[in-house]
Amino acid sequence: MSPEKEFVKEITNRDEDSSQWYVDVIRKAEMADYSPVRGSMVIRPYGYAIWEAMKAGLDRRIKETGHQNAYFPLFIPESLLQKEADHVEGFAPEVAWITKGGNETLAEPLAVRPTSEAIICSMYSKWIQSYRDLPVLINQWANVVRWEKVTRPFLRTTEFLWQEGHTAHRTNEEAQEEVLKMLEVYQDFVENDMAIPVVLGRKTEREKFAGAHSTYSIEALMQDGKALQAGTSHNLAQHFAKVFDITFLDEDSQLKYVHQTSWGVSTRLVGALIMVHGDNRGLKIPPKLAPIQVVIVPITPKKAKEMVLTKAYELKSALSHAGIRVHLDSREEYSPGYKYNDWEMRGVPLRLEVGPRDIENNQVVLVRRDTGEKIFAGIQDLDTAIAQLLKDIQDNMLAMASGFLETNSFSAATLEEMENIILEKRGFVYAWWCGSEECELEAKERMAATIRNIPLNQEAARVKAPNVAKCVHCGKEAEEVAIFARAY
Amino acid sequence: MSPEKEFVKEITNRDEDSSQWYVDVIRKAEMADYSPVRGSMVIRPYGYAIWEAMKAGLDRRIKETGHQNAYFPLFIPESLLQKEADHVEGFAPEVAWITKGGNETLAEPLAVRPTSEAIICSMYSKWIQSYRDLPVLINQWANVVRWEKVTRPFLRTTEFLWQEGHTAHRTNEEAQEEVLKMLEVYQDFVENDMAIPVVLGRKTEREKFAGAHSTYSIEALMQDGKALQAGTSHNLAQHFAKVFDITFLDEDSQLKYVHQTSWGVSTRLVGALIMVHGDNRGLKIPPKLAPIQVVIVPITPKKAKEMVLTKAYELKSALSHAGIRVHLDSREEYSPGYKYNDWEMRGVPLRLEVGPRDIENNQVVLVRRDTGEKIFAGIQDLDTAIAQLLKDIQDNMLAMASGFLETNSFSAATLEEMENIILEKRGFVYAWWCGSEECELEAKERMAATIRNIPLNQEAARVKAPNVAKCVHCGKEAEEVAIFARAY
Repeated sequence: MSPEKEFVKEITNRDEDSSQWYVDVIRKAEMADYSPVRGSMVIRPYGYAIWEAMKAGLDRRIKETGHQNAYFPLFIPESLLQKEADHVEGFAPEVAWITKGGNETLAEPLAVRPTSEAIICSMYSKWIQSYRDLPVLINQWANVVRWEKVTRPFLRTTEFLWQEGHTAHRTNEEAQEEVLKMLEVYQDFVENDMAIPVVLGRKTEREKFAGAHSTYSIEALMQDGKALQAGTSHNLAQHFAKVFDITFLDEDSQLKYVHQTSWGVSTRLVGALIMVHGDNRGLKIPPKLAPIQVVIVPITPKKAKEMVLTKAYELKSALSHAGIRVHLDSREEYSPGYKYNDWEMRGVPLRLEVGPRDIENNQVVLVRRDTGEKIFAGIQDLDTAIAQLLKDIQDNMLAMASGFLETNSFSAATLEEMENIILEKRGFVYAWWCGSEECELEAKERMAATIRNIPLNQEAARVKAPNVAKCVHCGKEAEEVAIFARAY
Repeated sequence: MSPEKEFVKEITNRDEDSSQWYVDVIRKAEMADYSPVRGSMVIRPYGYAIWEAMKAGLDRRIKETGHQNAYFPLFIPESLLQKEADHVEGFAPEVAWITKGGNETLAEPLAVRPTSEAIICSMYSKWIQSYRDLPVLINQWANVVRWEKVTRPFLRTTEFLWQEGHTAHRTNEEAQEEVLKMLEVYQDFVENDMAIPVVLGRKTEREKFAGAHSTYSIEALMQDGKALQAGTSHNLAQHFAKVFDITFLDEDSQLKYVHQTSWGVSTRLVGALIMVHGDNRGLKIPPKLAPIQVVIVPITPKKAKEMVLTKAYELKSALSHAGIRVHLDSREEYSPGYKYNDWEMRGVPLRLEVGPRDIENNQVVLVRRDTGEKIFAGIQDLDTAIAQLLKDIQDNMLAMASGFLETNSFSAATLEEMENIILEKRGFVYAWWCGSEECELEAKERMAATIRNIPLNQEAARVKAPNVAKCVHCGKEAEEVAIFARAY
């Protein structure tokens, strides 16, 4: 069997088994691997390089909006975690506990942070005294642990990497403004860097963060029709401030509780990247995040080998100098065809082929990963041409994903209609909802679909929903349109 | 009492109590704070920004030398940690153990990583098959936990942040080359970015890493005369390869064990930064790492306030545009004098004062944190002048620290001589050593001085040592000069 065929063989066809396809791509592209620790994965260099690019893009935006990074302890004493009742109820079943340190048994068990509200609030209570100390705008990049029963690489792992913002404000208005601002920062990053369109909205009471007053999310749609919550932003109101005693003396000399927010995205986004853009040949990485944006594959018949390699190194150096992340695949043990498949599988946005005839014609061949299109490009001004192509690929990937989201956004006036859609096509189903937990749960029980969020842009949501303003289940008058979907 | 005096009051005089001075500076400059978790600190935004600058400088060098970042699990199953006998013996007393996850008691306790050799080796054993897979050059930025009994912010904490490199090679020569290359990378970073001179050398058998064949270190000298191990690089030989079964098929078709290295530096370096450069006014941060390189303090008598502030914002914008990290302190509740002290305490390398008369004269006043020197500088080409000054400050800080190291490097021909030096002045004591653990321990018992390392540059070390070539304790013939010192 040719190496080309073997490649395809090693990745399960996505239409047959998208779940196995996902795992195959991760393993084959060396993004991550299973570890000897239950539910924990190893993020391999190629996967980690993508995460590093994501971190850089997000960290820049977090800093530009006035936040500073800090680092809080990994461990949280049990008594601190228990202070906020809803919070501990939500997280206790998922906590890993330290009970021994060195040779001593601990008097009080320590939780490995599942999230850091409790430990951070205990510090804010010390640091915040006056209105002059506000707002506090802190972000943390860290690992967190949640004892998950069923895990999947990137999507749900016992340990994962994330950033968590924790802010404190004078007023509820300021806090709410922060909550929505950060949701928009996430949208900006996910759409413009990851090329994944998202819908911004409010979570239902049932689905909100344990301890929050309200939770907002960005929701993305995977190619298998399932939704993925790509980021959340919480208005904590004064829930934590009251139990952790975070007060400040306001300008009017009154002692007041602060208003808080928290918000986060995680390595889960890497899973979204794979599922939104990948295909049966493997990964497709948007140029802005690709560790390698252009791979040079030299075509080296024996007689011309030295000449071609010399030119290939020249091209590499010139492109690298122009700020393009370029790799020259000079491996001798593989054929060009094998290399094409290998780098396509790894999702490199652009392949540059160069052989003796190309050099003669003072050109190279460029092949786009997103469309498969073959382009002959002159060697002169190649860097400019490639920079433009990378931009086009980035834009096209977002356009493709947006088209998919559009095509797979449906509406339903009744639960029967919704069930038909969910069973046949999945996707986002826009439907009116009365706001009752009963109707929300009915959809979950009948078709395993949950309310992803209630879009902030209700005007746009209503255009997508049936023109009825009646709850999809109980038929009572409804004021809001929600998105129902099966989800990761 | 004037605010100026209060500042000085709040930081303990270093000559009276350098240990309290250290803690005062950290607290007052808001670099870190104690947390409710035993032995764990919070790294506050100002301290974390310094660490981020350090990470950036080091990460660049680690990547330039061909390494890639990855991420391995936080937890290590007990059975894995126990595979290498010396390794577990060295680390077991310091391990925090997870015994419960969610509501279940674990069948096998999980160690929170004190270092990652065990978990990484378990993966290398899967990933490495052929000589073509070598070398593996991986680095990880992570948090680690060691159950310390006595802790001090940055210097010794239960949890700390670090990078740990883990590489695998075909031959011992390659591995040894890597060990020394990374030691030099550390030296380059610590000397050029942190402005701290170090001595490179080999650790004694007693002081080497648990599980290593040999350990190398860079050692720095704090202003209180105590040494601080600033980074280590280990040749693990085939110790881990044999117990974790990391083999490869070599070009000669023989199955061989790989040769490994590991190397790391941690947030401990932030402690070194404070202790090497600080003074009784507080921190001194080298320009390359300073979160704020220039602070603008406007002098705003009532009538000229608006004009001065307008100019101050102009200057800020121009300097920022020129790539200088600049902060404008426009707080109205504090006097300029208070601000001078505040920013000196925070170690900002350069202060820029601007008032009505300066504007009239088209100049500003610059004050260097390292020397206290006052400089009048024209507003035209100010960015160039400041960039040059920052460079001068960086160079001068290294020169000052190097001078201190030189002045506090002594020699001793006998333990009596050494004891006199250690008791009176501390510092590095160069002395001949026969290589026996007995003589090494004698120094430790008599004066609490340990061998910091055996300098790689023996030629230079011999120039500093007595011209005798006899062991400082037993008087037998000795072949190497070692550095003895009290250490953190």
